[in-house]
Amino acid sequence: MSNKIKLGFVGGGNDSLIGVLHKVAAVMFDRYDLIGGVFSSNKEVNVKTANDLGLDQSRIYNDFEEMIDAESKIDLSEKIEAVCILTPNFLHFPMAKKFLENGFHVICEKPLSISLKQAQELKSIKDSKNLVFAVTHTYTGYPMVRQMTQMISQGIIGDIQRVDSTYFQGWINDIIHDKDKRNSTWRLNPEVSGISSCLADIGTHAFNMLELVCGMKVKKILADLNNLYEDNPLDIDVSVLVRMENGCKGTIRSTQIATGLENNLNISVYGSKGSLSWEQENPNYLYYYTNDKPLQILKPGHPYNSKISLDGTKLPAGHPEGIFDAMGNIYRGVARAIRGEKNEKGEFPTIEEGVRGMDFIEKAVESNENGNIWLELE
Amino acid sequence: MSNKIKLGFVGGGNDSLIGVLHKVAAVMFDRYDLIGGVFSSNKEVNVKTANDLGLDQSRIYNDFEEMIDAESKIDLSEKIEAVCILTPNFLHFPMAKKFLENGFHVICEKPLSISLKQAQELKSIKDSKNLVFAVTHTYTGYPMVRQMTQMISQGIIGDIQRVDSTYFQGWINDIIHDKDKRNSTWRLNPEVSGISSCLADIGTHAFNMLELVCGMKVKKILADLNNLYEDNPLDIDVSVLVRMENGCKGTIRSTQIATGLENNLNISVYGSKGSLSWEQENPNYLYYYTNDKPLQILKPGHPYNSKISLDGTKLPAGHPEGIFDAMGNIYRGVARAIRGEKNEKGEFPTIEEGVRGMDFIEKAVESNENGNIWLELE
Amino acid sequence: MSNKIKLGFVGGGNDSLIGVLHKVAAVMFDRYDLIGGVFSSNKEVNVKTANDLGLDQSRIYNDFEEMIDAESKIDLSEKIEAVCILTPNFLHFPMAKKFLENGFHVICEKPLSISLKQAQELKSIKDSKNLVFAVTHTYTGYPMVRQMTQMISQGIIGDIQRVDSTYFQGWINDIIHDKDKRNSTWRLNPEVSGISSCLADIGTHAFNMLELVCGMKVKKILADLNNLYEDNPLDIDVSVLVRMENGCKGTIRSTQIATGLENNLNISVYGSKGSLSWEQENPNYLYYYTNDKPLQILKPGHPYNSKISLDGTKLPAGHPEGIFDAMGNIYRGVARAIRGEKNEKGEFPTIEEGVRGMDFIEKAVESNENGNIWLELE
Amino acid sequence: MSNKIKLGFVGGGNDSLIGVLHKVAAVMFDRYDLIGGVFSSNKEVNVKTANDLGLDQSRIYNDFEEMIDAESKIDLSEKIEAVCILTPNFLHFPMAKKFLENGFHVICEKPLSISLKQAQELKSIKDSKNLVFAVTHTYTGYPMVRQMTQMISQGIIGDIQRVDSTYFQGWINDIIHDKDKRNSTWRLNPEVSGISSCLADIGTHAFNMLELVCGMKVKKILADLNNLYEDNPLDIDVSVLVRMENGCKGTIRSTQIATGLENNLNISVYGSKGSLSWEQENPNYLYYYTNDKPLQILKPGHPYNSKISLDGTKLPAGHPEGIFDAMGNIYRGVARAIRGEKNEKGEFPTIEEGVRGMDFIEKAVESNENGNIWLELE
Repeated sequence: MSNKIKLGFVGGGNDSLIGVLHKVAAVMFDRYDLIGGVFSSNKEVNVKTANDLGLDQSRIYNDFEEMIDAESKIDLSEKIEAVCILTPNFLHFPMAKKFLENGFHVICEKPLSISLKQAQELKSIKDSKNLVFAVTHTYTGYPMVRQMTQMISQGIIGDIQRVDSTYFQGWINDIIHDKDKRNSTWRLNPEVSGISSCLADIGTHAFNMLELVCGMKVKKILADLNNLYEDNPLDIDVSVLVRMENGCKGTIRSTQIATGLENNLNISVYGSKGSLSWEQENPNYLYYYTNDKPLQILKPGHPYNSKISLDGTKLPAGHPEGIFDAMGNIYRGVARAIRGEKNEKGEFPTIEEGVRGMDFIEKAVESNENGNIWLELE
Repeated sequence: MSNKIKLGFVGGGNDSLIGVLHKVAAVMFDRYDLIGGVFSSNKEVNVKTANDLGLDQSRIYNDFEEMIDAESKIDLSEKIEAVCILTPNFLHFPMAKKFLENGFHVICEKPLSISLKQAQELKSIKDSKNLVFAVTHTYTGYPMVRQMTQMISQGIIGDIQRVDSTYFQGWINDIIHDKDKRNSTWRLNPEVSGISSCLADIGTHAFNMLELVCGMKVKKILADLNNLYEDNPLDIDVSVLVRMENGCKGTIRSTQIATGLENNLNISVYGSKGSLSWEQENPNYLYYYTNDKPLQILKPGHPYNSKISLDGTKLPAGHPEGIFDAMGNIYRGVARAIRGEKNEKGEFPTIEEGVRGMDFIEKAVESNENGNIWLELE
Repeated sequence: MSNKIKLGFVGGGNDSLIGVLHKVAAVMFDRYDLIGGVFSSNKEVNVKTANDLGLDQSRIYNDFEEMIDAESKIDLSEKIEAVCILTPNFLHFPMAKKFLENGFHVICEKPLSISLKQAQELKSIKDSKNLVFAVTHTYTGYPMVRQMTQMISQGIIGDIQRVDSTYFQGWINDIIHDKDKRNSTWRLNPEVSGISSCLADIGTHAFNMLELVCGMKVKKILADLNNLYEDNPLDIDVSVLVRMENGCKGTIRSTQIATGLENNLNISVYGSKGSLSWEQENPNYLYYYTNDKPLQILKPGHPYNSKISLDGTKLPAGHPEGIFDAMGNIYRGVARAIRGEKNEKGEFPTIEEGVRGMDFIEKAVESNENGNIWLELE
Repeated sequence: MSNKIKLGFVGGGNDSLIGVLHKVAAVMFDRYDLIGGVFSSNKEVNVKTANDLGLDQSRIYNDFEEMIDAESKIDLSEKIEAVCILTPNFLHFPMAKKFLENGFHVICEKPLSISLKQAQELKSIKDSKNLVFAVTHTYTGYPMVRQMTQMISQGIIGDIQRVDSTYFQGWINDIIHDKDKRNSTWRLNPEVSGISSCLADIGTHAFNMLELVCGMKVKKILADLNNLYEDNPLDIDVSVLVRMENGCKGTIRSTQIATGLENNLNISVYGSKGSLSWEQENPNYLYYYTNDKPLQILKPGHPYNSKISLDGTKLPAGHPEGIFDAMGNIYRGVARAIRGEKNEKGEFPTIEEGVRGMDFIEKAVESNENGNIWLELE
């Protein structure tokens, strides 16, 4: 009998952008069988998706509560063990909560919830159970992000003395300058999206990446948010001053109004002996600077990389890896954790990182509302 | 009942580099179910792979002939319809031949065979049946290769007046300078690899890419091959002068001794109104030059791209696509062809392209052996 | 008789890094004759430099006051008209003051002075005379900076909605971590360098570039400075939040501890219709982003550029221009102003920009000392 | 008295593109005084140029013969010692010949002449005199070309096993497709331009660069030229197979029909231990590849570079050097040779290299005319 993890989806139907990413990631290393779930709140899409996937209709449900009830009655050898939550942000919390309470491992899209309090509650439930909880900061799965993290933890660039993490997009530009559009999009509706747009959607990625690669927490922040229009209640452009645990300074910047930019998540860490820089849009290049040697560019798949960086590379060097590979690596880490196999820190982003992200969002908004003051993260 | 294509593998087991690429490509668009096959000539690996994949052991076979016999007796609704041939080069021909003769669609790794004659025989069999035959020139599946092909066919760069296609690698360097290694590797053993190393392994990709994006045949070639050592019987470095159908000139260059280079397949086409250039290692950038406007760089996922280029992009622009996406697109094209759905020229490389590639290899070797003379392709 | 401007140097001798840059810039467009001056406070170097240059020894002086006295007695047709001040920062003010008072045009290295008060006094003197005063923010002379400025002023990228200007270097890293070195370098000695290291040396370039290309003033700033060690009295790492005149937000960042980075001055301006980005180390590329068209890269020398961008390009497109070309362009602008010829805004940085720079430095230090508060520039 | 070399120009007037490059290069290191010459065959331009330069009108001549006569009568301490020939190609030979015969050092634009025979005659005259003769293959003056040459000569990349040198431009595209234009431009008129357009204008640069950096001669070539139209008598597109002295193979490619390309001179040398690659349009980056370490990118001004590479860098690393710096370095090398100072091989291109270039052009044309046969260079 296969030792694959039986996986269910909530969301991710044919009408979803993100479903395919999770589906492919799940099969990449033969660790999961997609069994069923609720692919869409639209019944037709739900059934159609299951059909396209060739799934057993008996494992397709109308909603997540029905799914939990039904699956809970299924024999352990057949029952869905882990669930992938791909629904709108405000649904993450109630769904994840109930899945956890009923013993399901959870892979949840970010942001983890729409408040820090919710996030902490989820963490508390998770901690009380022997379950795995992953938050899909997908970009952390790239081989060269893993290599960067390893090199920093090994002291190769010395003490960290400056950090800069950015995530620049331009897509909201087409919406924000049109009064009707900006007042009607769910993205800028606090009831659906919570207290933040840009911070919650992409700023948290920049924050998470920073803490991950530095192996160090952000201690306090001073945030400057921009809504651009008075009738827009949410931030769409963010500059944050940061102070790291070790006292070093730097910035986190994220924006949705950098016209023409696509998905520019970049992280640069400057140390006393060297610096490292990485860009999401060219993920297979890691730039390593020193003061006395030529610039070096590391690429995936070479023996000079660390074990965890090499772990997910499937083909010889020079075959470009993309976003699917990054997510595939994360899914493998989660599988190892679920099966109790050895897995290294950094193989997948955990609920702790989800909680940190919510803390960052709330403090940034509070800092901005209070005239750009310094606030400590918890 | 699912409309997915029932797929079998020959080769591609856990001990194979290439298996994972085909496996992931097959699931990417929900068009295939992997049913079984012969994953390895090593029985243990064969069974282990099937187990890892969670396949039904009754559909795992000891060899391809057993597989054909058994599958042919299975009810049409359950029978494997298409087979993916991932074995060493000299096995492509006998396997593909028998699968075709028994009514299976074939997806075959390149090179199609080890002689032009074999390739032509396969094509002749294929033409006599109502079957689909794909040769996996994977790199043709990238969105920006498709966009480049479309732009050229639409006349955007005018008449083609110069072409350059290259594929540079450096890996053989670690073998070629060691007499023992170069005399023992199967790569340089004509009995296993046929009459060519570099041409057959990567030169054909450069040739195929050139004919694809130009929408035009190479008319004749003059080839200069380099074996580097007298005791090495096969080419490891190649420069070819080409003359295209329309009379324009250019080069195909491929090498395995470009120390430090990984997988540099590049294609540049210079037209009377503009030029286009693309590199496999940075596949999401298409460079478009004109004499009077700024350089333009096209990227996947934008509405300014053609329909066939946008076809395979699954996430918003700025999420890097890699080699898995390229192969996924090819698999989708094959699925459409098998199911008789509309599919555009260029969605996957056909057996015609495999035959062309074998012709190129043989003529290049012949040109070189005769003192670098011009030879026409058939 | 030649209409060239008779130029004198103060500083810039054979023992100076910067002298050659000014000397070559001065001859590039045949607008200046270097007549004499004080090349060094070291008499031997002074004489040697004059000899190497083939200058008349009678026009070489021991100090700038002797130079002013002597030159003032020379017939107008022979007298030095303009002086280039290349001495240490704290000497800029007394020298520039006296040259202005005695009717010499001044080309002064940045920073203009070591206090805002000094800078304002210089401006006041300059305004009372009919003289030209240039501050050599050299990087503003690059063709693509001029093109960027023009495109923004013409509204091509719409309303500016975010700005980021950075200047990253890593050289001080070799000094800062050694207690003896950091306590002995003049760079970090307030008596010689004034109240700032990083801001004064490179932060002002980032600030100046930002105001130049935006055609708009920075309204207020909130600065976070880092000295790294308690026994270091001056900033070596800077992050500044900015608010522009039009209300848009952004950052200025400069650092001397970005290990391995050389001279990374970059400016990005994001507008409602498009964005522009430029990097000093690759000065011949201007990146122009929009949401609906491919990225465009503009290069010098093409007719699609504006007149002021094309003004300084001497060879056909594709011949790289470097820092010497940038300074040459500035010198030409100054010559035109001295001769009363038509010259466009932006052809050279004026004393107004020098004053702005000093204001920026002082306010940034004050903001930091007061707990990172917002301060308005004058 | 100044020890500067007294320099004369023939050509290079205000109506010339190239004059400014030579003028600035000459002053860059204080080694030359421009005294006079014949700036243009147009008398008005000639006088105007001299005036703009502030030169003594008595040293301005109507033609080069008058110049030689007059200068020969001037006292040695005042006489022009070296002459810079910037006239159309067919004038290089008669002028250089007479200047040499009358004892002037010569700096001559490439191509050296319009036939190999002429070139050899010049070399023979030069060899019989104690004179310096430089041919301005400007691009060889870049610091990173010098570094590449040094690294290869030191064996850092091992034995050379493949070479590729290219020079791609697109400018002729605007002329070639218009019958009137292509039949009237002097560029394609054999009476003015000799037997070649593309080879003579840029192919020789690619050839010269190849022999320089490899420190090795091209032994034989097989050339394929393209005139594109039957009524165009000269090559505008070239592909050449080469065999180096050590037996290694490779290509030289140059074209004027690569639409949109500007001045893409690139050289790549692949060795048994490593590879090096350099591009003229981004001249401050030298790419160094090995099979087991990350890609390294060397930049000018760093102590890790060789002495000859560092020689011409005037400012700290990160201040981009351009084409003017390259030519300045060559002029300094020539000055050292004229003054009998120590100068290293490679500091400037000599007449030997000019002769080699003419041999290359003639053999390439002959190879093409005879059906693309192999021909040995002399």
